[in-house]
Amino acid sequence: MFAQTPKPPYWAVIFTNQRSDVDADYARVADQMVELAACQPGFLGVESVRGADGFGITVSYWASEEAIAAWKAEGRHRLAQAEGYARWYTALFTRVARVERDHAWTHG
Amino acid sequence: MFAQTPKPPYWAVIFTNQRSDVDADYARVADQMVELAACQPGFLGVESVRGADGFGITVSYWASEEAIAAWKAEGRHRLAQAEGYARWYTALFTRVARVERDHAWTHG
Repeated sequence: MFAQTPKPPYWAVIFTNQRSDVDADYARVADQMVELAACQPGFLGVESVRGADGFGITVSYWASEEAIAAWKAEGRHRLAQAEGYARWYTALFTRVARVERDHAWTHG
Repeated sequence: MFAQTPKPPYWAVIFTNQRSDVDADYARVADQMVELAACQPGFLGVESVRGADGFGITVSYWASEEAIAAWKAEGRHRLAQAEGYARWYTALFTRVARVERDHAWTHG
């Protein structure tokens, strides 16, 4: 569930969102988008959690801003984004950030 | 639940973690840390979700790297960090990132 990212710098897209009560197609398309993202040039990993109240945070990691721009413009992703606005989300926030340093730790 | 952050640039600390099965004191201290962070100079907001499997993402937003360093070094926060390593988490990843641009949207 942790993304195994390389040494910084790299890029993060922090996508926070509130789901609507419309479930039709959501889980299927969300899974497809993770699989599709993983095939994009420059994809480094993704971490995603949704709480019981429907609030979710997905952070995807990328090698460059160009990789993020290409993923944003990818055809099937654009269709999914349109569906997201129309049906699946009531609000969302997207932030593009450059990761400058990181620290990983595992018990034992 | 969405952080109402200012116009970029600003900073994000992306904290992803896996909870242990030790619940003692966790919720109380976690709430205290959010309250304490909110009083720190340069704090801009926080977004946090934990899934049913114990994997969590907390993103806190800050005005500067100096504000992040000061929060990391804050006394009660340091104690909580030590407890986190000792008891509450089995693994964690912390990433410090500079938010370069963002986009917010609310339905209707």
